[in-house]
Amino acid sequence: MKFVTAMIHKEQFIGVLHGERVIDIHKAEKDIFEIVSFPGTLFECLKLGDKFVQDVQQIIDKISEEGSESYLYPIEEVTILPPIPRPSKNIFCVGKNYREHAIEMGSVEDIPEHVMLFSKAPTTVIGHFAEVDPHLHITSQLDYEGELAVIIGKSGKQISEADAMDYVFGYTIINDITARNLQAQHKQFLLGKSLDTSCPMGPCIVHKSAISNPYDLSITTKVNNEVRQAGNTKDMIFTIEQIISTISQGTTLEAGDIIATGTPAGVGKGFNPPKYLLPGDVIDIEISSIGTLTNKIKAEN
Amino acid sequence: MKFVTAMIHKEQFIGVLHGERVIDIHKAEKDIFEIVSFPGTLFECLKLGDKFVQDVQQIIDKISEEGSESYLYPIEEVTILPPIPRPSKNIFCVGKNYREHAIEMGSVEDIPEHVMLFSKAPTTVIGHFAEVDPHLHITSQLDYEGELAVIIGKSGKQISEADAMDYVFGYTIINDITARNLQAQHKQFLLGKSLDTSCPMGPCIVHKSAISNPYDLSITTKVNNEVRQAGNTKDMIFTIEQIISTISQGTTLEAGDIIATGTPAGVGKGFNPPKYLLPGDVIDIEISSIGTLTNKIKAEN
Repeated sequence: MKFVTAMIHKEQFIGVLHGERVIDIHKAEKDIFEIVSFPGTLFECLKLGDKFVQDVQQIIDKISEEGSESYLYPIEEVTILPPIPRPSKNIFCVGKNYREHAIEMGSVEDIPEHVMLFSKAPTTVIGHFAEVDPHLHITSQLDYEGELAVIIGKSGKQISEADAMDYVFGYTIINDITARNLQAQHKQFLLGKSLDTSCPMGPCIVHKSAISNPYDLSITTKVNNEVRQAGNTKDMIFTIEQIISTISQGTTLEAGDIIATGTPAGVGKGFNPPKYLLPGDVIDIEISSIGTLTNKIKAEN
Repeated sequence: MKFVTAMIHKEQFIGVLHGERVIDIHKAEKDIFEIVSFPGTLFECLKLGDKFVQDVQQIIDKISEEGSESYLYPIEEVTILPPIPRPSKNIFCVGKNYREHAIEMGSVEDIPEHVMLFSKAPTTVIGHFAEVDPHLHITSQLDYEGELAVIIGKSGKQISEADAMDYVFGYTIINDITARNLQAQHKQFLLGKSLDTSCPMGPCIVHKSAISNPYDLSITTKVNNEVRQAGNTKDMIFTIEQIISTISQGTTLEAGDIIATGTPAGVGKGFNPPKYLLPGDVIDIEISSIGTLTNKIKAEN
């Protein structure tokens, strides 16, 4: 099941993908069951966990029987927004979680022994097809990082690795756009990772039930159709279970929290000479079982 | 003018300190002016900027004339909460912003050339007199850091140093509690700085009009009444104006954002042997013109 936050006729809605169409779950629930039980945002819905997924499944089952209705929109007619347009805290990000990427950023010395965690401000988030501001006045080293992101579905603390997957709602794609000069200059990563529009996210959140093995997902990043990253989540150094358990030993994880799990090799900085992003560039990040997140670097006027 | 978020008779309210008493501004406005115009949280109120401060001043003026009323509580009868109990994003924190502190953390090599920025998760925030969880299962190196924090009052981007103070609403005190072992182990600071209860904040937000020179404030941190930090904001490496301008070059600052401006020398790690926090310890951080923030490390059961 693939959930989206989207817009049609200037109104925001929560949708679930249904072939080439999107179901407006509030309208569908009202039409079919004559009630409105879902909260107003996907962020609030996912806190309901399995109950939410089961209720949406009931709607999908009805639709399959009864065919086309007013709450079904052709996907090309809607604007896809970030699944969680305004996270309630910074996005947790894991640094250097793929060996070959750690090496391309420096040397084998850079392969971490412990989970490296930094964050991106919520003001960075944009959706599928939204434009990335190149911030040319402060950087000429804008870089892409295609990443699998985990959406937490249930709050918890001191979560064991064995229990960690119970706290996952689903997965999405994040482009952890980074200004390499600021990342280096300011030592701690926050500033170089927090430029406005530097966190494209989406296009959807895939419920975990649709991904049998999160460690067998290909991650492919293309810039202007040239493959730059061709990784696979099997190469993560720290597993999702380890990351969730490590964070939550002292820090409460909350439903709706987002954890970007790190990027594989092939970032712009890793090339010689580096291949940084330029105005007009188009970045596609495809992760198997999720979809493709596409964003363009805003062209100069 | 000193604003608090507080609790009395199990109800949360927004207050302004008035001698030894606290004015419940909603009740006072209703009683005196027969309207309720203030939003429900201090976070929302401060977005109104000067208008909010002027309206509160009108209330204070009326009270001075008319004496004691039902909306005035003796300060010892209220529970002071964090002024912003749940920030809408991580707290921005400046690292190593005092030379002597940078040196005690390592050497002169650690004095930063550029503002060093990291963050603390919003789940860390607790108020004056609330207990700090020592997290003994993951750290025996819990440390205090007394800091002046700036509260942003108006959203902006690419703010010049000349304009920066227009974006400040006021100031508070933060104890940037840090697990030194986690800070070192995980390289990036987020995790070691984000343990639950590791951001005592308050007791109040002082409006900027009450502080003529933010670079002449003494910062005194005591542990069990022993002075550990005796600093002054005149020794900041990067000024508040520089910090605001640096962040906002690429990252929108929003009303209600909190920026901790760094700690002076005298943290526990700086002593030989280190003086880390232990269960039962009481930490007082006093900043002139603001007040004293007091918190106890929770004793073992």
